Amino acid sequence: MNPDAAGPPPRWAEIIAVGSELLVPPRLDTNSLFVTERLTDVGIEVRLKTVVGDCRSDLEEVFRHALARSEVIVLTGGLGPTDDDLTRDAVAAVLERPLVEDAAVIAAMRRRFASRGVRMPEVNRRQALVPDGAEVLENRLGTAPGLWIEHGGRVVILLPGPPGELMPLFDRVVLERLAPRVGADRVFRRVVKICGRTESDVEEVAFPVYAAWQREARPIQTTVLTAPGQVELHLSLRAPDAGVAAARLDAAVDEIVAVIGADVFSTDGLAMEEVVGHLLRQRGVRVAIAESCTGGLISSKLTDVPGSSDYVVCNSVCYSNEAKVRVLGVPEGLLREHGAVSPPVAIAMADAARALANTDIGVGVTGIAGPTGGTEQKPVGTVVIAVTTATTRTVCMFRFPFTRVRVKMFAAQMALDLIRRVLLGIKPAAAFVWRGGADQKPGS
Amino acid sequence: MNPDAAGPPPRWAEIIAVGSELLVPPRLDTNSLFVTERLTDVGIEVRLKTVVGDCRSDLEEVFRHALARSEVIVLTGGLGPTDDDLTRDAVAAVLERPLVEDAAVIAAMRRRFASRGVRMPEVNRRQALVPDGAEVLENRLGTAPGLWIEHGGRVVILLPGPPGELMPLFDRVVLERLAPRVGADRVFRRVVKICGRTESDVEEVAFPVYAAWQREARPIQTTVLTAPGQVELHLSLRAPDAGVAAARLDAAVDEIVAVIGADVFSTDGLAMEEVVGHLLRQRGVRVAIAESCTGGLISSKLTDVPGSSDYVVCNSVCYSNEAKVRVLGVPEGLLREHGAVSPPVAIAMADAARALANTDIGVGVTGIAGPTGGTEQKPVGTVVIAVTTATTRTVCMFRFPFTRVRVKMFAAQMALDLIRRVLLGIKPAAAFVWRGGADQKPGS
Repeated sequence: MNPDAAGPPPRWAEIIAVGSELLVPPRLDTNSLFVTERLTDVGIEVRLKTVVGDCRSDLEEVFRHALARSEVIVLTGGLGPTDDDLTRDAVAAVLERPLVEDAAVIAAMRRRFASRGVRMPEVNRRQALVPDGAEVLENRLGTAPGLWIEHGGRVVILLPGPPGELMPLFDRVVLERLAPRVGADRVFRRVVKICGRTESDVEEVAFPVYAAWQREARPIQTTVLTAPGQVELHLSLRAPDAGVAAARLDAAVDEIVAVIGADVFSTDGLAMEEVVGHLLRQRGVRVAIAESCTGGLISSKLTDVPGSSDYVVCNSVCYSNEAKVRVLGVPEGLLREHGAVSPPVAIAMADAARALANTDIGVGVTGIAGPTGGTEQKPVGTVVIAVTTATTRTVCMFRFPFTRVRVKMFAAQMALDLIRRVLLGIKPAAAFVWRGGADQKPGS
Repeated sequence: MNPDAAGPPPRWAEIIAVGSELLVPPRLDTNSLFVTERLTDVGIEVRLKTVVGDCRSDLEEVFRHALARSEVIVLTGGLGPTDDDLTRDAVAAVLERPLVEDAAVIAAMRRRFASRGVRMPEVNRRQALVPDGAEVLENRLGTAPGLWIEHGGRVVILLPGPPGELMPLFDRVVLERLAPRVGADRVFRRVVKICGRTESDVEEVAFPVYAAWQREARPIQTTVLTAPGQVELHLSLRAPDAGVAAARLDAAVDEIVAVIGADVFSTDGLAMEEVVGHLLRQRGVRVAIAESCTGGLISSKLTDVPGSSDYVVCNSVCYSNEAKVRVLGVPEGLLREHGAVSPPVAIAMADAARALANTDIGVGVTGIAGPTGGTEQKPVGTVVIAVTTATTRTVCMFRFPFTRVRVKMFAAQMALDLIRRVLLGIKPAAAFVWRGGADQKPGS
C-alpha cells in the first residue's frame, strides 16, 4: 500500500466527502465505501479519505492538498442548490477556473421540474454553474449533475451526495471513463465464509497459505472480517482479465478449503441461510424449527431468503416450559430431570417440531441468552442445538461468552450451520463446544 | 458549523485514523464515531476527519495541516510494535521532538507479558518510544499506551486502534483532561423516536418547531435519522450544566410531542421492543404472536429484551396455509374466501395465538414479503396486522413498497407499534396504510 513502492505505475485516488452533517456523531460517510470498492475494482487504490464540513476554506485547503498528491480526486456531496453547497465554488477557486452556467444542465433541470408539474425555483440555477471546461455527468435521478474535470494530469470527479444518485452515476464513470484509461489490470475478488472456527483459529491455519500468496508475482491480498458465528476471508487479486483472475482465485479458494475443510460454507458470497436454503431445495426436504432462547431469529433468517416458503412450513417459539410441554408435547419429566437447557429436551423439541409440521428435518434450540438465569453447570451463553430426522439425531452443546443479543446471533448461525452439516453428512462444528462444568473454558 | 462564525470561542478538533486496512473496501473507520460523540459532548466540534494509510509522508502531511488548523488533534491507530506502525514516528518528526524510551511503559509492558507467562518480544520496545515531553496515558487493556502531547497551544492525542482499548482510554482523557479545560459548556442530547409517519411528514410538521429553536440564544441542533418504520430526531444543546439542559430539552421534547402526538413512542432512547416490553410488564399482560410473512422477526425483536420471558410464552411462525389451518386452527373457508393476506385471516391468527398460549393479547401478521406472490389487489409489500384481546379487535392493512427484508423489518416494527397503541388505547398509525386497489398509492 506504500505509494512509493516499485512496480507498475501506481494510480492513487483520494475521496473527499463534503457536508457538516457527516461530522455530527451518529452519521458516517458510507459513500466512500462504495467509491473505494469501485476504484479498487479497476486497480485504482484509495490513498486517503477526508470528511470535511460546509466550510469553504477547509474544503479548498483539503482539495488543494489532494490535488498535489493524487491522480484521481473524488468529491461527494455539497452540490445542492443552497449557499451551504460549496463544492463547485471551492473546486473552481482552487483550479482557478471561472464558474459558467451550463445551458444543457439548466434545460435538463427545467424538464425535470416540469415533469412534476412545478416551476424550477430560481435557487436551482446554482446547480447549473460548472467550472469552465468541466464535463457534465448526467444524473438521471436528481437535479445535481456530476462533473468530470481534467486538470494538469489529474482527474477531478464531483458526485452528488445521495447514495441512490451517486451509485449509478459513479458506476457509469468507472465503466466509461476510468476503466479504459487505467490500462489492462483490474481487481477481482472472492469471499470465503467459514463457520465453526474462531478468527484466531482461522488465522493460524490459513496464515501460511496467504503468506505464500504474498510472495507471488501477482500477490493475492487477504482481509479477515468477522460476524457472529462467521469468519470471512476477502481475497483480492489484480489481474489483466477475468479468466486469469478466476483461475487463480479458484485455486486460492481450493487452498483455503484444503486447510479449513467443511467449515467453509460459502465461496460465492452466499449467506448461511441461502446456503442452507439451496441445500434444502436441492434435496427436496422441508425443515421445522422449535426455538427457545433464539426467540424466532433462526426462523426469521431462514425466511429472509426469497422462495423459502418451499421448505419452511411452520416453526414455533416456545419460551416458557409450559409452552414446551403443552404446545410441543415435550414430556414434563424430561424438563424436570434434565432441565430445559439439555440435550434430551433439545431433541424432544426437534422431534416435536418435525411431527407438528410434518417435515423431514426438525431443529430444537434451547439455551440461556442471559443476562440472568445462568448456573455454574450451565452458565449464561449455554445453548443446546439438536437436529433430528426420522433416522438420525445430532446434538451439540455450545457456550457463547457474549451478551444476550450476540448469544442469539451466534446460536442462530450455529443452528443453521448444523442443518447444513446434517444435510451434507459432515461432523458438527468444533468452536464454542461446551461440555459443562464450571472449570472448563469455552471452546476447549 | 462554520469555524468563522461568531459566538463563544470555538474549539475545533480533527480526527486522523491511521491504517491501510481502513482503506480496503469492506472496512470503515468507526472509531471516529465514538471520538466525535465524546468530543461533541464536551462542546468540542469535529471539523475534519481523515483516514490515511500506513504511508509516513502522507501521515506527516495530514498531521502538519491538522496542526495548523485545529486545537485538538486525535490520531487513532498505528501504535503497534511493527514497522508499519508509524504514528509515533510521524508525530515526533512533525513536532520536531526526538523519540525517547519511556521506562514506565517498558516496565508496564514487561509486567503484562509476564502475567501471561511469556517474555516480552524485543519488537515491543518500539511501543515504549514516545515523543519527548509526551505524557503517557495508561492502556489497561493492551500494550500500546495512549499519548498526550501539548504543543504550541495545541493538544495532540494518540490512541490505540482497537475499539475496546480506545474507548475506555479516551473516556478517561475526556473526563480528566479535556472537559476541565473546555470551560463550562457541555453538549446534552435527547432522542425522540417516532413510528407511523414518513420522514418527510415528520420534517414538514416539526420543521417550524426546530427552526424556532435555531433562533434562540442557545440553539438546539436537530439531526433526522431513519430506520425501518422509525424516524429519529436527535436534539443536542450546548449548556453550562445538566439541570439547565434537562429543563430546556424536556420542553423541546414536549414541543415535538405536541405536534407529532402519540406517534412519538420513545423520548429516552428506548427501542420499540423495549417500550412494548415495559408496557406489557407494567400492565401484567402477556402476548402471543402468530407470524407469517415476518417469519419470526417480531418474536425475535421482542425477545431481544432481557426479561422478556415474563410476557412472551409461545409464538408461532405459520408460513404455509396448511400450517395456518392445522396448527393455528384458522378455518379453511376463511382462507378460501378472503385469501391468506386478509383482515379476517389476520384476526383468526391473532385469536388462535392468544388461545394457544393462553395470553391476554394475540397478534396475527400475514402479508406478501416478495419478490413474487403479489397481485394487482394485493401487491408485494401488502401486510395485514391484527391485535386482539378478549374484547377488542384492531386490524391494519399496510403496503410497504420495499424489498423483501425491508418489508419484514417495516412489518415487524409496525406490529410492535400496534401492540403499543392497543395497550395505550390510541389510534393506529397513518403511514403506509393500504386500502387495496391497483390505482391507489401507498400512504394515501
